[in-house]
Amino acid sequence: MRLAIIGTGLLGTSVAMAAARLDSVEVVGWDPNPESLAEAAAISGMTPAASAADAAAGSDAVVVAAPVARLAGAVSDALVAAPEDSLVTDVGSTKAGVVAANPDPRFVGGHPLAGGETGGPGNARADLFDGATWYLTPTDGTAGVQLERAFRLASDLGARPRALPPEVHDRILATVSHLPHVLANVLVAEADATLAEEGEPLPAIGPSFRDSTRVAGSPSAIWTDIYLANASALIERIDGIVERLGEVRGLLESADADGVTAWNDQAAAQRARIAAEQVSGGDMRSVRVAVPNRPGVLAEIALALGSAGIDLADLQLHPAADRSTGTIVLWIEGDGPTEKAVALVRQLGHTVSVR
Amino acid sequence: MRLAIIGTGLLGTSVAMAAARLDSVEVVGWDPNPESLAEAAAISGMTPAASAADAAAGSDAVVVAAPVARLAGAVSDALVAAPEDSLVTDVGSTKAGVVAANPDPRFVGGHPLAGGETGGPGNARADLFDGATWYLTPTDGTAGVQLERAFRLASDLGARPRALPPEVHDRILATVSHLPHVLANVLVAEADATLAEEGEPLPAIGPSFRDSTRVAGSPSAIWTDIYLANASALIERIDGIVERLGEVRGLLESADADGVTAWNDQAAAQRARIAAEQVSGGDMRSVRVAVPNRPGVLAEIALALGSAGIDLADLQLHPAADRSTGTIVLWIEGDGPTEKAVALVRQLGHTVSVR
Repeated sequence: MRLAIIGTGLLGTSVAMAAARLDSVEVVGWDPNPESLAEAAAISGMTPAASAADAAAGSDAVVVAAPVARLAGAVSDALVAAPEDSLVTDVGSTKAGVVAANPDPRFVGGHPLAGGETGGPGNARADLFDGATWYLTPTDGTAGVQLERAFRLASDLGARPRALPPEVHDRILATVSHLPHVLANVLVAEADATLAEEGEPLPAIGPSFRDSTRVAGSPSAIWTDIYLANASALIERIDGIVERLGEVRGLLESADADGVTAWNDQAAAQRARIAAEQVSGGDMRSVRVAVPNRPGVLAEIALALGSAGIDLADLQLHPAADRSTGTIVLWIEGDGPTEKAVALVRQLGHTVSVR
Repeated sequence: MRLAIIGTGLLGTSVAMAAARLDSVEVVGWDPNPESLAEAAAISGMTPAASAADAAAGSDAVVVAAPVARLAGAVSDALVAAPEDSLVTDVGSTKAGVVAANPDPRFVGGHPLAGGETGGPGNARADLFDGATWYLTPTDGTAGVQLERAFRLASDLGARPRALPPEVHDRILATVSHLPHVLANVLVAEADATLAEEGEPLPAIGPSFRDSTRVAGSPSAIWTDIYLANASALIERIDGIVERLGEVRGLLESADADGVTAWNDQAAAQRARIAAEQVSGGDMRSVRVAVPNRPGVLAEIALALGSAGIDLADLQLHPAADRSTGTIVLWIEGDGPTEKAVALVRQLGHTVSVR
């Protein structure tokens, strides 16, 4: 398989390094910055291409790892240059815009939840994606064969692929990623102002503050675009936070001890619920689904499982010889998630067997 | 030296364990819960006392480690029982209330920035305070000899003592500790609501969210009292955060890329400034200050240095034979802080020499 990487920063170079661990994958790459490309090639062993189009042409899969502001155009260019049976995917942090701009059956939006405070190929790692969730955002126009390849690629790179509609992805990321960044920024600003007021230039910062502000002022070159691309979802969440802060303020002002305790206990329960849902484990099961070979069927199944929080460790599509029907094999970890997946896929009207 | 611990939870037992590392310190302890006391005694080797008054009587120093809601009364009881030359101090997270309630020259408010998500003597550690800032909140009514003992005790237990007025302590802690806890709570609540709305029960939570919510729902048995004891300072900070969120919202709504970048870059600068101020290092210097032996002189010096962010690794008070004058020796790490300290102490009108 030939894999093209467009954009060789932290994520693109890490994709190349993770792919280099695989057998029989040839990686070519391109970056608008020749120095970054040379560094990435030296680190990862990828072959530098003369242009983005040269990289995409003749590749089985193209991973576009461009900045969010240039993403839609870079994906579009890749789709023009790539073969007609190639997968084109990306690794951008917001998905609705790039997906709407590229209604091509070969394009599958993607977003690995991995990265770091410091970008650039020099910080890339072959194990960056190991165990990380890798969101894929197919639509009903996405081709099954390309979606299968996207799942396989994310899984081969060490990640856990999960399908979500692009708009849901953006709303969730607004909450679990973009909002924490906004809160970290306003918290350091508030602390800076307080400490200046108090003439206490060397505050002893507790661990709660350090943890809460670790991502404050993440690189603007990346984050300005993310904030703006996801502005409407983020504004909703900011409004939610302001409302909740108003409630706490009221409890404090009225010295309502029972109310403060109830609010704080609820937060403990919410945190425990979210944390418990992170835990997974168990044996790997394969779920075989017989499906008609029509467009969108794989996306429908993947989205149903993704929306139910079921990670697919792998996914294979086996069309029958006459291509009128096929079998999808879903690899799922743990008995609980497997049973849930079987029920969901049956609800969609398919025949299912488990091994 | 005999050291009494009133309240043998996480902090009280850790004080006992840290004190057990020292030569010639005898530790006695008491707790209203006999099981907790027995566990603390078994872990730390402290001698259990029959009552709080028995523990305090005959002790050179009394550390009150009661919950915030019972703190003022427990300190008051300890002051009644303790000898007239004894130090009484505490480890509570808010200071203005307990200090105002106990205007006794023997009482020095204290607050080590150490602890953990899980309380109880079973989680106590001898090294809990190693390298941690230990705030001391003397007033101009605090006796120099007791303040010296409080500095020495905090330093002997492994911490870096720093003096601050009680109200300033509370305003700073509202920002660097209580506010992050409030934001963690509202963030998990918002996430819980979003994820329920989206039908995504198993969100893949990124590291920014995990770090920002680590302290969400910390034990209400401790935190309800802290929130309420520091409500007015905390309300000011909540208002500050709401105002800052409104500014970000405006930038997002008007898609102001330059404004978002400027805001985010400013956060990076603020975080870097706060982080840089945490760094210390260098050789230990001793600064000798000749002082008149009048009440409040040591508190004045300690507060001047604390307010300038200078940590004292140790502090000794040497009264002259006739007690009309004395020498204070301040131990400070690094040439920069030492020079700053010398300038500040000279500004207060004292004669200073450095070794």
